[in-house]
Amino acid sequence: MTSRLSNLPTTLRWLGDRLGYLALLDQTLLPTECREIECRDLESVWRAIRELRVRGAPAIGIAAGYGLTLGLGRLDDESEFFTRLQQARDRLAACRPTAVNLHWALDRVVAVAQRLRGQASIPVIHQAIWDEARRIHEQDRAICRAIGVAGADLLEDGSTVLTHCNAGALATSEHGTALGVIYSAAASGKRIQVFVDETRPLLQGARLSAWELSRAGVPVTLICDSMAAQVMREKRVQAVIVGADRIAANGDTANKIGTYSVACLARMHAIPFYVAAPSSTFDLTLSQGDQIPIETRDGGEISEGFGRRTAPDGIGIYNPAFDVTPAELITALITEFGVIRPVNAGTIRATVGPKTH
Amino acid sequence: MTSRLSNLPTTLRWLGDRLGYLALLDQTLLPTECREIECRDLESVWRAIRELRVRGAPAIGIAAGYGLTLGLGRLDDESEFFTRLQQARDRLAACRPTAVNLHWALDRVVAVAQRLRGQASIPVIHQAIWDEARRIHEQDRAICRAIGVAGADLLEDGSTVLTHCNAGALATSEHGTALGVIYSAAASGKRIQVFVDETRPLLQGARLSAWELSRAGVPVTLICDSMAAQVMREKRVQAVIVGADRIAANGDTANKIGTYSVACLARMHAIPFYVAAPSSTFDLTLSQGDQIPIETRDGGEISEGFGRRTAPDGIGIYNPAFDVTPAELITALITEFGVIRPVNAGTIRATVGPKTH
Repeated sequence: MTSRLSNLPTTLRWLGDRLGYLALLDQTLLPTECREIECRDLESVWRAIRELRVRGAPAIGIAAGYGLTLGLGRLDDESEFFTRLQQARDRLAACRPTAVNLHWALDRVVAVAQRLRGQASIPVIHQAIWDEARRIHEQDRAICRAIGVAGADLLEDGSTVLTHCNAGALATSEHGTALGVIYSAAASGKRIQVFVDETRPLLQGARLSAWELSRAGVPVTLICDSMAAQVMREKRVQAVIVGADRIAANGDTANKIGTYSVACLARMHAIPFYVAAPSSTFDLTLSQGDQIPIETRDGGEISEGFGRRTAPDGIGIYNPAFDVTPAELITALITEFGVIRPVNAGTIRATVGPKTH
Repeated sequence: MTSRLSNLPTTLRWLGDRLGYLALLDQTLLPTECREIECRDLESVWRAIRELRVRGAPAIGIAAGYGLTLGLGRLDDESEFFTRLQQARDRLAACRPTAVNLHWALDRVVAVAQRLRGQASIPVIHQAIWDEARRIHEQDRAICRAIGVAGADLLEDGSTVLTHCNAGALATSEHGTALGVIYSAAASGKRIQVFVDETRPLLQGARLSAWELSRAGVPVTLICDSMAAQVMREKRVQAVIVGADRIAANGDTANKIGTYSVACLARMHAIPFYVAAPSSTFDLTLSQGDQIPIETRDGGEISEGFGRRTAPDGIGIYNPAFDVTPAELITALITEFGVIRPVNAGTIRATVGPKTH
């Protein structure tokens, strides 16, 4: 099994120097088609994030970091450069509201530019922000590996794990967060099987997680979201691992809609529920989860998400893209700095509060 | 709102005399197309049940009852009549394993024929079994109304109810069981709103419940199954009502996959969880729910249920069509004989044990 673990997809690639472009694996086409799109300007990155062609909190952060640098490299007026940089920052920041990694990456890149303002030429500043975007990308690889190693101990040889949505290689630079834990456990020789919730409405579990796990040689069984409780009742899973889009200071965690449901069910069946995420997903400015902005998306994703109308006209549709799982339902948080357990404001502050990359 | 409550669909119709045929609203085409199919022989009824063109435990029972009579009316040899009747019974009984109403209806019709064997001519026996099939159909109308009246008191004016799958007019002769309670409450002047789980994989909630509730003028909001927990957490629903496919003697209830999940979530959010079903759905020969046979259906319903491949090849798919909700998660059972509360073997036996129609 281990030998196929390198067979994971490349979610994002930068091609060329600082005047080059971003290539994204178009995740809306998976699993039936594996095709990249080229983003050569801010708008194409904005659209790719908005339309979920690239998704997953860490990958969104990386894409946004690169997106900031596009279209600025050939300017020669400093004032225009910083005006356009700020506009780009604001536009990308408003693209999707829940994943905090987006803001974190944008702020990192803008801060580099601001430190150099008045002290360096535009090409030098542009080179510096592109370097910072690349650094975010490169660091994410190391962070995902560290998350994987930190979490792998939590999974026993021969166990079966349930996951929801996609917090895998496709949601990050590579390796993933929640799935990274599974890949690392598998790489260490443990036999791990996975149940994947299909994750309505956009089926990231069926289309993305099942696809990348299968490519990596991890045995995977697909179920509908509504079957998770039954699978737990049948004692088929020994742990749940999911990713996160934003984690408040007390550990309340926003993640793909349905995560809270799985957390409730895991608690009722006495199954440990783990959240794997990089420190950049923590938002220590929010004391608790009800302060996290939750994106509500178009009802058409539910009523005609597959090119076919599956609901009558004239009804209400409620389509929150995320929910918040309260800290008390989370057995442990798995970060690049180690496992946080129990989950509370004190243990979180002690682990991710003072650290920076 | 009340004035539109008569605007419900006709799920099954018999046309003509005992030599006539069964017309079924093809529920696989809803909500975009409203078309009947004509069943003039046993096989077409078998296929209609198997392919879920007619579904819902009470409606399956009615269709099977009529199905037994098709193709027997013009025979003139008694031995052949009874051989063919028994073959038809066995074929229909094996069509879908979980809903006990199927067996219940078949047994009722066959018993009538057996009582007359040797004492009446084939046409008279055939007339008698057709009369019995019609009686099952007619009684179901009265039973659904009685369930509705019995349950309506449980819903408060201004409340919002969550339902899963379809236990409405489309699952019965008319009016429904779970939705019948809602229709009856609405007819009594209560303002009731409904959240409907879309109910993967076959979307009976989105396609059927949302459609018939909307036609009846009941305000309905569609959600994905994975959103039920979030809707409960937001205190948007005050009760859950679902139907049933088979209820064991102790109250353990088999119903559409995902029902158990909703029951767990209702318990965690302290929301009452009601099951509405006719006495024909009780199987007092089974002491508890783990004895109920659970149908597992083709994985293609999950991986390409929308005419488009939504999962990779080569993975496992688990597709149980039903799950069992343990009695301790059920606040009350709503039957045509009244509300059973608390739910246990004693209260069930006292209410549905001695009664027959």
